[in-house]
Amino acid sequence: MANPEVLARLRTTEGHLRGIRRMVEEDAYCIDVIRQIRAVQAALDKISAMILDDHLHSCVITALRGEDPQERERVLKEIVEVFNATNFSQRR
Amino acid sequence: MANPEVLARLRTTEGHLRGIRRMVEEDAYCIDVIRQIRAVQAALDKISAMILDDHLHSCVITALRGEDPQERERVLKEIVEVFNATNFSQRR
Amino acid sequence: MANPEVLARLRTTEGHLRGIRRMVEEDAYCIDVIRQIRAVQAALDKISAMILDDHLHSCVITALRGEDPQERERVLKEIVEVFNATNFSQRR
Amino acid sequence: MANPEVLARLRTTEGHLRGIRRMVEEDAYCIDVIRQIRAVQAALDKISAMILDDHLHSCVITALRGEDPQERERVLKEIVEVFNATNFSQRR
Repeated sequence: MANPEVLARLRTTEGHLRGIRRMVEEDAYCIDVIRQIRAVQAALDKISAMILDDHLHSCVITALRGEDPQERERVLKEIVEVFNATNFSQRR
Repeated sequence: MANPEVLARLRTTEGHLRGIRRMVEEDAYCIDVIRQIRAVQAALDKISAMILDDHLHSCVITALRGEDPQERERVLKEIVEVFNATNFSQRR
Repeated sequence: MANPEVLARLRTTEGHLRGIRRMVEEDAYCIDVIRQIRAVQAALDKISAMILDDHLHSCVITALRGEDPQERERVLKEIVEVFNATNFSQRR
Repeated sequence: MANPEVLARLRTTEGHLRGIRRMVEEDAYCIDVIRQIRAVQAALDKISAMILDDHLHSCVITALRGEDPQERERVLKEIVEVFNATNFSQRR
C-alpha cells in the first residue's frame, strides 16, 4: 500500500514547483530561483530515501530470505544501480 | 523577461511529478518510482543550468563590467555558492 | 579479504591526485584542475559502488538471512544512510 | 601563483586516500570505508570551490571586463560546464 507520508510529500513538492514557475513568470532573481529548485531536489531526495527504506523492508528482505538466487541477485543489483545513479561518477 | 523554454520545461516537470504521484498511488514498483524521481531531478538540473546561463549573460556581465567592487564581489560570491550547493561537500 | 580490484583502483587514484597537485604547483588552468578533480571523484564513486556490491553480497545477505532482527535492521539502516549521503538532500 | 591552501589541502587529501587504502588492505568494515571515501570527495569539493573562487576573481573578471566578446563567451561557458558537471542531470 502506498506510504501516506510519501504521497503527502509528493503533493507538497508539486505545490513548491508550481510556486517556482510563478517566480519565473514574475521575473524573480535568478539565484533565488536556483536556490528554490535545489530545495525541491532535496525534498525529492528525501522522498527517494523513504521509498528505498520501504523497499528494503519489503521486497529486499523477502528476496534475500527466499530461495531463488536469481531473484536475490536481481534486487541487489537494483540497489547498486540506484546507489550509482545518485553517485558522482554518473555525472559525467 | 522570463525565458520561455525555462517555463515550458518547468510545466513539463510539474506534469512528470504528478505522474510519479499517481505511480505511488497505484503501488508501482519502488525502484521504478525512484528512477522517475531521478529523471525529474535531472530535468530540474537542466533548468537550473539554463537559468544560471541567463544570469551569467545578464546580471553577472553587468556587475563585472560595472564600477562597483561590492556588487562585483556579491555576484561572484553567489556563483561560488550555487556551485557549492550542487557539490558533494554539501552532502554531509 | 580485500578486493584486489578495489586496491588497484585506489592506488591509481592516489597517483591521479598526486598528478593534480603537480598541475596546481605548475599553475595549470583552473578549469582543467577542476575537471581532473571531478575525474578523481568519479573514480572514487566507482570504487564505493564496488565496495557496496561486495558488502551486499556478504554482510547484507548473511544478516538478512540470519535470525537476528536487530542485526537485519542495522544493515538496512546503513544502506539507507550511504544512499542518503550520496543524495542531493544532504547537500544543504 | 599556486594557492598555498589548495596545495596544503591536496596533500592532506592524498594522505587520507592512502589511509583508506590501508583500511581496505586490513579488511575494514565496508560501510566505514565508503564513509571515508565520501569524506575525501567532500574535501575535493571544497578544493574545487576554492579553485573556482580564484578563477572567478582572476581570469573571469579579466575576460568579462575585457573587450573580446569571444573570450567572454568562453569563460562563461566554462562556468556553466563546471556547474553542470556537479549537477544531478549529469548523473545519468
